[in-house]
Amino acid sequence: MFTKRFESSLSHARRGTLTTGHGTLETPFFMPIATKGAVKTLSSFDIERLGSPILLSNTYHLYLRPGLEVMRHFGGLHKLMSWEGALLTDSGGYQVFSLAKMRKITEEGATFASHIDGSRHLLTPELSMEIQQAIGSDIVMVLDECTPPGSTYEYLRDSIARTTRWAKRSKDAFVAGRSTSNNPSSQLFGIVQGGVDEKLRCESARALKEIGFDGYAIGGLSVGEAFADSCRIVEALHEELPKDAPRYFMGGAKPEEIVAYVKRGVDMFDCVIPTRNARHGLLYRFVHDDLSRPDFYEAIHVTNEAHKMSDEPLVAFDANDPITAELSRYTMGYVRHLFTVEEVLAHRLMTLANVRFYLELMRRIRVAIDDGKL
Amino acid sequence: MFTKRFESSLSHARRGTLTTGHGTLETPFFMPIATKGAVKTLSSFDIERLGSPILLSNTYHLYLRPGLEVMRHFGGLHKLMSWEGALLTDSGGYQVFSLAKMRKITEEGATFASHIDGSRHLLTPELSMEIQQAIGSDIVMVLDECTPPGSTYEYLRDSIARTTRWAKRSKDAFVAGRSTSNNPSSQLFGIVQGGVDEKLRCESARALKEIGFDGYAIGGLSVGEAFADSCRIVEALHEELPKDAPRYFMGGAKPEEIVAYVKRGVDMFDCVIPTRNARHGLLYRFVHDDLSRPDFYEAIHVTNEAHKMSDEPLVAFDANDPITAELSRYTMGYVRHLFTVEEVLAHRLMTLANVRFYLELMRRIRVAIDDGKL
Repeated sequence: MFTKRFESSLSHARRGTLTTGHGTLETPFFMPIATKGAVKTLSSFDIERLGSPILLSNTYHLYLRPGLEVMRHFGGLHKLMSWEGALLTDSGGYQVFSLAKMRKITEEGATFASHIDGSRHLLTPELSMEIQQAIGSDIVMVLDECTPPGSTYEYLRDSIARTTRWAKRSKDAFVAGRSTSNNPSSQLFGIVQGGVDEKLRCESARALKEIGFDGYAIGGLSVGEAFADSCRIVEALHEELPKDAPRYFMGGAKPEEIVAYVKRGVDMFDCVIPTRNARHGLLYRFVHDDLSRPDFYEAIHVTNEAHKMSDEPLVAFDANDPITAELSRYTMGYVRHLFTVEEVLAHRLMTLANVRFYLELMRRIRVAIDDGKL
Repeated sequence: MFTKRFESSLSHARRGTLTTGHGTLETPFFMPIATKGAVKTLSSFDIERLGSPILLSNTYHLYLRPGLEVMRHFGGLHKLMSWEGALLTDSGGYQVFSLAKMRKITEEGATFASHIDGSRHLLTPELSMEIQQAIGSDIVMVLDECTPPGSTYEYLRDSIARTTRWAKRSKDAFVAGRSTSNNPSSQLFGIVQGGVDEKLRCESARALKEIGFDGYAIGGLSVGEAFADSCRIVEALHEELPKDAPRYFMGGAKPEEIVAYVKRGVDMFDCVIPTRNARHGLLYRFVHDDLSRPDFYEAIHVTNEAHKMSDEPLVAFDANDPITAELSRYTMGYVRHLFTVEEVLAHRLMTLANVRFYLELMRRIRVAIDDGKL
């Protein structure tokens, strides 16, 4: 259940809480990505130390491995990974379109070949609900088609109509499956599609509102379109989406983009940037307190030769943040050395640092809204 | 400085303490391997949580990367890796013989080509001391030749004579370099060689005693010879090596072998088994309290299909051991899943579990000696 506490007088930024079966979360918030049941290099114990109240996991991956039988045996992903916080799962649709070896979309669903062993599967709205309810997700996403950037108007229009029909089928299956779900208190979110066409986006939002969902996601952005287009769509949807439901921007974004979308009324984010870029040696840190400055943060290539002799701590010690007690012990020079000699400890330390950055970014955003500064 | 407290009445097992510039260690002890300045997947913070008072690192690897300039800039490996416990470094000789692309041994030293970029280097006893003193190791090892199993008597005899001359040169260089070392309180250990020939081993030990070292290592075992041969050599050396100096069995061993060598008077061990086998999915755990039983422990293949649905914790919770609070949360089934989907978190959790097992093994050995049971 979402409770909107107030909206900023400076922007559409909102403060509220989202209550799930696994905790009440302050919005806006960010979800680190635990693709296959683990944030890469981190355990659930680590996520607790980082203080993230929620993780995102991927239906497509968990469906293929460990599969439904194992998931049901363990009673869901919370128990499998020993995680007491909240979980959101995507519908599997995005991975079918981005990862699977082949795919064919029909009215029934999406047929695809597993990227692991080539085995054929048909992902329907009903199956997606069944998987997510076996996972025991706190926030379940409807099955949608994530349309590729540059799709024609006609393609978008037909795709949205199908996504709407799939959303209805998702809701019906979600309601029917609730009693046998591994998480009876889970919520269902619809996904707005429509590329960068405002009219289609608003039509999609209206159709979803009519069906009625616990929350509304904006899908199909952060897929290569211009940032200005993305902002325009989020802005257009602000009036269309129910004010008292949470809004989730899927699959984005850079720190300054998160600030921009929060100002346009978004409450929830996920992104691979902090974790994936950590493994590529890119460290995020704050430079200025004022989030409205375009240079409020920097991304440093720790692997650069320039850091070979750097005595600077990877993360500055912060008495309010227990994870920095560990991270501030290690110098940039040490972490660069670990990258050079291919020690995965480098990935772990960088992942801790970057996830912490994104969580701290969201905390600063919430404080800035509370203080009437955003 | 080594202080032998007492010897068992049942065997040659000894209890004592080894005082280093970074702590006083209870013997017998085990050293986890931090090859390139990190125990794979673990940080110094993790090693502290595990409770290991000492780590072993590799001169050959650290010489190539990050190199002497970086090591000196940081003031040694303790500072580079933020480790306040003790450090032992090998001489680099073993890696020259096992890893380098080519090698040629002359009286001067070992010429080799780096396994990374093929660059040529000449590792002399003097250079090995210089590197280890830049590393700031608490326990420095002399440069020796690790003779391959199956070497002829003549080869062994000539090699030992050279190893003895190298040991003398190592000591001279060690003493000369002390004032500019990153660790003025470091100790120097000699290395007994001689294959599985008792007579040559005792000759080697006598020659090293004459030079005089802070401790004596038994090198060139655990390289493919029969366990019985290895025991015979350790037994023969018991009378030959000074009783009041620590003895270090290099590069071994399985848990039951450690028990056997402790009974034959060995005080120090290192081994890749707990860390390397962790990454291969092999989990070590105790089955019986009695260390004299051949089946006191088991090694479980966590990756086996049989563990797919296993609810059993990876490690049983132990109120005396803080690391188990984390590890006991995760089931075998979850860790197997992590291996299946190639999440390095599996390596990390298994490494924590196995290093803990080896440290706990040593604790049980020490208690057994104290209790007059070993």
